[in-house]
Formats: sequence, structure tokens, C-alpha cells
Amino acid sequence: MRIDEIGRQPCPVAGAMAQIGDAWSWLILREALYGRRRFSDFVRHTGAQRTVVSARLKKLVGAGILRRVEYSQHPTRHHYLLTDKGRALAPVMLALAEWGSRWPADSDRGARSVEFTHSCGHPVDATVVCGGCQQPLRAGDVTPSFGTAGRPAAMFNPEGSPENQGNHGPRASL
Amino acid sequence: MRIDEIGRQPCPVAGAMAQIGDAWSWLILREALYGRRRFSDFVRHTGAQRTVVSARLKKLVGAGILRRVEYSQHPTRHHYLLTDKGRALAPVMLALAEWGSRWPADSDRGARSVEFTHSCGHPVDATVVCGGCQQPLRAGDVTPSFGTAGRPAAMFNPEGSPENQGNHGPRASL
Repeated sequence: MRIDEIGRQPCPVAGAMAQIGDAWSWLILREALYGRRRFSDFVRHTGAQRTVVSARLKKLVGAGILRRVEYSQHPTRHHYLLTDKGRALAPVMLALAEWGSRWPADSDRGARSVEFTHSCGHPVDATVVCGGCQQPLRAGDVTPSFGTAGRPAAMFNPEGSPENQGNHGPRASL
Repeated sequence: MRIDEIGRQPCPVAGAMAQIGDAWSWLILREALYGRRRFSDFVRHTGAQRTVVSARLKKLVGAGILRRVEYSQHPTRHHYLLTDKGRALAPVMLALAEWGSRWPADSDRGARSVEFTHSCGHPVDATVVCGGCQQPLRAGDVTPSFGTAGRPAAMFNPEGSPENQGNHGPRASL
């Protein structure tokens, strides 16, 4: 399977990554969430090549995460605005940033460029909780169950025997 | 800047993506969180080429997200276990999966392979909340502030004037 085919996997993680793309897309979305709209600002503040930014913007627009909007007619100028779908990535981005702050690379000098403050006045300290009990989610407390839509043999297990197909439900646990 | 250099950005999102890698890494981590440990299982259930899985596992071990552990001596066999750092990605993965379920691609047939159940008995419905007030985080309710460590001109703004350097704090809002 090629990386541009992972969206065929009936998995919400694969579906999300297939729509968002690579790390450059995440940095472009970071800048969009910071209020950036213009191509030149995305190039400047992500550090990506212009061709890379152009391709990622096209992908994000195609996925309905950004909208390309004309803001000037003479001369014609466009900028990129987050859709509701794109703005819905803010909590994911904050959870990812929380992990990145808590678990830096060994080479990281600990420099943090950004602190997030919530409208309540507290630091964000993004926490992912269960919508049912509001308790923080931890690996080990979550059990996945796999439906019939999951993991068709043709996609994941061409040479596998039937009992191997999609067979990691029972003992699987996050 | 090359994509393997984004970890130099003093940003927790860039730091996280630099350590995790591309979409294949996310799918390998998905499988690891589902209980997968073996190279052959990562290949089978991500759909990635063996060379791709090998490179991503090496990267994830290097980042301290997975550990390579010998589980058999005759013959010598290794498998890959999540570290605490890796298990701490579970909430991020669940938040990403929640977004992917809520916002599928147009091409998505709506097939979902997995449902997550929390130890409380409820469906997970992963929600990212503010650690201060416990309210769900939404774009528009979070304000980033940029410290002096942020966005050195040499990295982001080589030709920019000083007043442009890292200048998106005041009007920035998630």
C-alpha cells in the first residue's frame, strides 16, 4: 500500500492522517490556528519550501480543512481560512502539543516558544478525557472493538489465513 | 528547512511530529497501542512495505517511543514495546481518531473498523479539555503567547525585518 492509499483503511486514525498529510501539513495548520492566512506567511513561519507549502495547502483545501478565498480583486489575491472541519483540529493540535512539551526529544534544549491560555484564565494543560465519565484517558483503560468493516483480508492480510484476519480484538487494549 | 530538521523549531507540535514521523509511524503506533509487538504484525496490519516499517520502527525506538526487546535467544528474536513516552500518545491518538470519525473524507464510505470503550463502561468519545476548568477546548477559546525562545529570525524569517520576527502573538488566537 502507498502512503496516499491509507485513507482506504477503515480506521479513523488512517482516515485523519490521509486527510491531513505529513508534518508540514501539521505546521501549516499550526500557523492557520495562530491566525495565519497568507501563503507567504505559511512559508515564512513553517520553514517549508514554497513548493511544499503549495502542495500541502492544495491537499488541505481538497480535504475541506482549509478554504481558499479571494480577498482582493485588483490585483487578484487569495488567502486560506480554516473551515469548521479545520478548526475542529485545534483540540487535537493542543493534545499533540501537550505531549510534545511533556516528552521532548533528547536533543531538545527545552526551549518552548508558546504557552496556551484558555478563556477561563488558566493555562490550557490540554487533557484528553472520556466523554462518558470525564476522567483522563490512559493507555490500558481503553478497549477497542473491531467491527465487521474492519481490516478486510485483501487490504491487510493477503496471504493470511482466515483466523488471522482482523484478529486482534479480544486481547487488544490501549 | 528539510522535514527532518523541524525538530529544531522551538515548538511542541514540531517537536512531537519530528519524533513521531509520518503517517506510517502513526499507524505503527496505532498497532502498538492495539497490542501488536512483532515486525511481521506491523507490516501486515499497517499495509506498509517492510522497508518502511523497519525505518519507522528504528525512528520510534530512537525517539524513546518504542523499545526493542529480545524475547527469544534461540533463535534470537526481538519485538517492540511501547515505553511510557509511547503509551502517553494514546490520548493524542484517541483525540485524532475522534476527529477522523467526526470528519471523514468525502470518499469515506463511513465504514468504521473500531469502537473504543473506556474502563468506566462508556464509549470513549475522546474530548480534549482545559486542565484548569475541565471545559472542552475549542478554537477561539485558546490564546497562544510566544516567549523569547520562539521563532529565531535565522530559522523562520531570514529576510524579514525585526518587527516581523515572531510577530504573530498579539492577534493570534486558536
